[in-house]
Amino acid sequence: MKKVLAEVLTIGDELLYGQTLDTNTQWIGEKLSELGIRIIRKVSVGDLREEILKALAEASGRADLILMTGGLGPTKDDITKKTLAEYFDTPLVMNLQALQEVKALFESRNRVLTPTNEKQAELPQSCTMISNTMGTAPGMWFDHQGKVFVSMPGIPYEMKAMMELSIIPKIKERFSLPVIYHRMIQTVGIGESWLSDMIETWELKLPSHIKLAYLPHAGKIRLRLTAFGNDYTTLEKEVDEQVKQLLPMIEKYVYGYGEITLEEAIGQLLVSQQKTVATAESCTGGYLAHTFTRIPGSSRYFQGGLVPYHNELKIHVLGVQRETIDSFGAVSEQAVREMAEQARKLLQADIGLASSGIAGPDGGTPEKPVGTVWIALSDGQQTYSRKLSLTRDRMINIEYTTVAILNLLRLTLIGFIDQED
Amino acid sequence: MKKVLAEVLTIGDELLYGQTLDTNTQWIGEKLSELGIRIIRKVSVGDLREEILKALAEASGRADLILMTGGLGPTKDDITKKTLAEYFDTPLVMNLQALQEVKALFESRNRVLTPTNEKQAELPQSCTMISNTMGTAPGMWFDHQGKVFVSMPGIPYEMKAMMELSIIPKIKERFSLPVIYHRMIQTVGIGESWLSDMIETWELKLPSHIKLAYLPHAGKIRLRLTAFGNDYTTLEKEVDEQVKQLLPMIEKYVYGYGEITLEEAIGQLLVSQQKTVATAESCTGGYLAHTFTRIPGSSRYFQGGLVPYHNELKIHVLGVQRETIDSFGAVSEQAVREMAEQARKLLQADIGLASSGIAGPDGGTPEKPVGTVWIALSDGQQTYSRKLSLTRDRMINIEYTTVAILNLLRLTLIGFIDQED
Repeated sequence: MKKVLAEVLTIGDELLYGQTLDTNTQWIGEKLSELGIRIIRKVSVGDLREEILKALAEASGRADLILMTGGLGPTKDDITKKTLAEYFDTPLVMNLQALQEVKALFESRNRVLTPTNEKQAELPQSCTMISNTMGTAPGMWFDHQGKVFVSMPGIPYEMKAMMELSIIPKIKERFSLPVIYHRMIQTVGIGESWLSDMIETWELKLPSHIKLAYLPHAGKIRLRLTAFGNDYTTLEKEVDEQVKQLLPMIEKYVYGYGEITLEEAIGQLLVSQQKTVATAESCTGGYLAHTFTRIPGSSRYFQGGLVPYHNELKIHVLGVQRETIDSFGAVSEQAVREMAEQARKLLQADIGLASSGIAGPDGGTPEKPVGTVWIALSDGQQTYSRKLSLTRDRMINIEYTTVAILNLLRLTLIGFIDQED
Repeated sequence: MKKVLAEVLTIGDELLYGQTLDTNTQWIGEKLSELGIRIIRKVSVGDLREEILKALAEASGRADLILMTGGLGPTKDDITKKTLAEYFDTPLVMNLQALQEVKALFESRNRVLTPTNEKQAELPQSCTMISNTMGTAPGMWFDHQGKVFVSMPGIPYEMKAMMELSIIPKIKERFSLPVIYHRMIQTVGIGESWLSDMIETWELKLPSHIKLAYLPHAGKIRLRLTAFGNDYTTLEKEVDEQVKQLLPMIEKYVYGYGEITLEEAIGQLLVSQQKTVATAESCTGGYLAHTFTRIPGSSRYFQGGLVPYHNELKIHVLGVQRETIDSFGAVSEQAVREMAEQARKLLQADIGLASSGIAGPDGGTPEKPVGTVWIALSDGQQTYSRKLSLTRDRMINIEYTTVAILNLLRLTLIGFIDQED
C-alpha cells in the first residue's frame, strides 16, 4: 500500500517573529501519526500572499494531504481564505450553511452579528465547508487533482474540535491508511551514549521496518520504537518480541512505557506500596516538592517538604545537629544524610529525601566546586547517599538533582538499590 | 539597506510525529527579530538524508541566513552532521579544539569518554566550530556561496547558550543590520484588554516608526516598543520620551525593564530593603520556593519554606491552630493568614507568604470549586489576604497563584498595597 504523506502548514506572522508558540503542529503530528500517516514536513509562513501560494504549490508536490492552520480571522492581516480562492482559481461566495452557523453562534452568545463577522461565511466555491463548533471561522476541505488541502483556524481549541469532529473522520474515509505502531520506553539514570553502547548489538539487528529513536530530556531518555507495516496486531507482536530481547539489557533504567513521567511512575509505586515521602531541600529549593505536587492526587503519598535554605533552619527547624554542619559543612554527605532522616521523622513519612549542593553559578570552592551536590534517602532502616558532579548552570543542576533523587527513590522502591554504584 | 532574510530549519522525527514540542524556533524567531532580521519561513523535517538536503537547497534559495537545530546527538538516528558534510562536499574530520572541549567536559563531570562521545568532535572540514558550553555536540558555522548556515544542538539550553555566546555576535559581525532600538516594559497584575484600554490614547499617537507589541505570559504582560531608524541614540531618546508619557498611566503594574523577571525584580527590592521572606505553601506545593531559589544569590533574602501538604503538618510543624482548620477548612482566608504568620515566625523571616487552594483538576465542592485559592502575606504588623478564582488546570493554577503572591509581595515592598482592591 502506498504510504499517505502529509504536510502541516501554519500561517501567521506571529509564528515567525516568535510572539506565539506553535503548539498546533505538535498536536496535529501526534494525531496523524496515530492514523498511520507519515508527516514529511512542517512549514510556517507569514501572512503574505506570495509566501502562502509558494508553500501550497511546494506542499502539493510532496504530500497527499496538506493540513493548514491560521490566517482565518476577520481582520485585514488574515488573508488565507482569499489566497486559497486564488490558488484553486475559484470565487469567494457566501456559504449559506456557514452563515446560518455563525448567526446561531452569535445568537447563543447574545451578540450582534457585524458585517465583518458575516463576511466570515464567505468561502471559496470549490471547497467543502467544515463546521467550527467553537468559533466563527469555518474550516475548508479542498479535493484538488488527487490531493487534499484542509484549512483550519489557528486558535488551538477551535482547530482541535474541528479535527476530532470532522477532519479525522473525513481523512479515514478518503485515504486507505497503512499501519504504524509506536512503543515508548522511558529510561532514567543513564546517559545517551552509554545507553546506545549498551544496546548496540540489539539495535543493529532490528528489522528495517522497525526504527529506534533516542529522545533525551533533562537526565532521562525516551526510546521510541516505530514499526511500519500493514497489520497492527503483527506489528504489535513484533515490537513485543523486540522489547522482550531489549529489556534484560536495560531493566534497571526503565521506569515506564508510553507517555508516563518519572514522577507519575513513582507516584504509582508509592500508592501500590502504601508508602509516603517527605523532602528536605537545600540546593533544589522546592523544585523536588513541586515535582511531586504538580501530579494530581499526589497528596495520597506526598506528606510535605521543608526548604531550610538558611543553615539556622536546618538546625532549629529540621533538627540537623549543629556539630555536623560546623564540622563538615551543609554540603556534605553527613549533613544530607541527617537531612533525609530528619525529613522522614519531622514530616511523618515512610521515606525522607534530601538535597544539599552548590547550585551555582557562584559559591564554589576548590574542594567543593559549583555543581557539587549530595543527595540522600532514608527509609527508617537504611540511609543511602550519593554524590553528583553537575554543571555550572543553576537550573540544570536543580533539574538533574531532582531527577537523581527521584531515581534513587525509584531504585529503592523496586529493590534495585544495592546494585547502584 | 537590503533586509537580511532568515530561515529556521529544525530537524528531528520527534518534531514531525508530535512527540516533542518545538520551542526552539519561537525563541530563535524572537532573537532574530530583535536584530532586525526578517524570518521568512520555518521548516521542520525528519532525520532523513534526502529531506535535509532538499530543505537546505530550498532554504538557500530564499534566505541569507539559515539557522538549524537538532540531529546532532551521538546516536545512529542523528544524521545532520554527515548530511551537512555531504551538502557542502567536505569530509568529516576530527576537530582538535572540539575534542579538547568534549574531553574537558567529561573530566569536569568525572566521567569516562567513550568512543561514541569522541566521535562528536568530528566535524565537516569547511565549517567553523562553535563551542557548546553546555553539552557535548559542537555547533557548526558554514559560510557558503554568500549564505550563512548554522547548525546547533536541539536541546534548548545548549542551543540558547550557543546563540547568546557565539552565534548572535557572529551574525552581527557578518551582516550589516538595520538600526533597531527595543525597550521592554514588564507588567504584572493586569489583563491584556484592560491594559490596552488604559493606554489606548497614548498608543494611537505613537509615531509610525515606533511599534508596540503586547506579549502576555502566565499572568504577566511584556510591552515591547520597537523603533526603526538610522541612528541608535536618536531612537533611544524618542523611546525615552514615549515611555515618560506612558509610565504615569500604568506605574502600579510595572515591575521592571528589559529581560528582568518578576522574581529578580523582587529579589532586588528585598536586598535593597534588607528584608527576608519565608513561605508556607499548600496548593503551590513548593513552586513558590522554587521561584525564589532558582535566582542566583536568593539565599541573601530567602530564609526557607515549608510545604505542609498533609493537614497534620500544617498544625504540628507549621503551627496553624487545629480549630481554624476544623472550622473553616485548610482552603480558607483564616487558615492562609495563619500560615503566612507562622511561616514568618517559624522560619525567622521579616515577611511570611502563604497559599492554600484547590489546584485541581479534582477535589472541588459547590462552595469551593476547583481553582479557588487563598493567598496571604504577613509582615509582622499587617496580614493581607486575597482570594483568587482560577481555572480547572492544575499547573496554570500553580503558576498564576505564584505570580499573584509575588505581586502581593512587590506591592507591599513598594508601598502600593493599600490601593490594591
